[in-house]
Amino acid sequence: MRDFRIVVAAHGELAPALLSTAELICGRIDDAVAVGLDPSDSPETFLERLLAAVGDPGAPVLILTDLAGGTPHNVACVAAKRLAQAVCLSGINLAVLIEAATTLETLDDESVGRLLASGREALVDATQVLSTRSP
Amino acid sequence: MRDFRIVVAAHGELAPALLSTAELICGRIDDAVAVGLDPSDSPETFLERLLAAVGDPGAPVLILTDLAGGTPHNVACVAAKRLAQAVCLSGINLAVLIEAATTLETLDDESVGRLLASGREALVDATQVLSTRSP
Repeated sequence: MRDFRIVVAAHGELAPALLSTAELICGRIDDAVAVGLDPSDSPETFLERLLAAVGDPGAPVLILTDLAGGTPHNVACVAAKRLAQAVCLSGINLAVLIEAATTLETLDDESVGRLLASGREALVDATQVLSTRSP
Repeated sequence: MRDFRIVVAAHGELAPALLSTAELICGRIDDAVAVGLDPSDSPETFLERLLAAVGDPGAPVLILTDLAGGTPHNVACVAAKRLAQAVCLSGINLAVLIEAATTLETLDDESVGRLLASGREALVDATQVLSTRSP
């Protein structure tokens, strides 16, 4: 049983698209929300919406952003400093979100390290695999 | 000057969301298309649309998919076998697409290896970085 909320923070339509695609693959994900940066957002308004999505500032939360250095990432870093138990991973792929939703139970260092490693391993050269496997 | 087409193949809305987000960050990306798997698609109809998006089967193309083992990835592997110069990376994040669009010139092994490595390096624990940098 997962003891933390998942918040996907990304540019525009990418945030809900990541979450809905993950749900398409692994079924409904409880306690997960997507917050997309709108063109009309300032960093301040996005921070407000992100903190609202996080909810309880004392509860554990995993914030997943699309790109280190992008506005959602930068704002998530500001948010994380105001939260007691936030972990923020940036540059995620779909595998990170699915793994976090389906196998992670808690946000200890080992679990987060495993999540990062599996996300990196999930980025593969499929043609290389194909040619290796071909006779 | 990039000598290959980029085709983003992913579930539903994720494909156009990845491409439009990359364009939001780095400006218009020439010779790049997104093909989203619709709920009404069979693998066969998706393969048809993917091959149509690739265009010339003899030209170099980089196919980027959202998840190894997912239908877009599986179909992309089938497509790659029919194409003379296709490279298919799966499990991509936004950084892979941006890097491919802005810095890669050709699809030789070294460039593809660098692209994979930079995509993996772009997946980071931002909170770890923050706490390391704090006094």
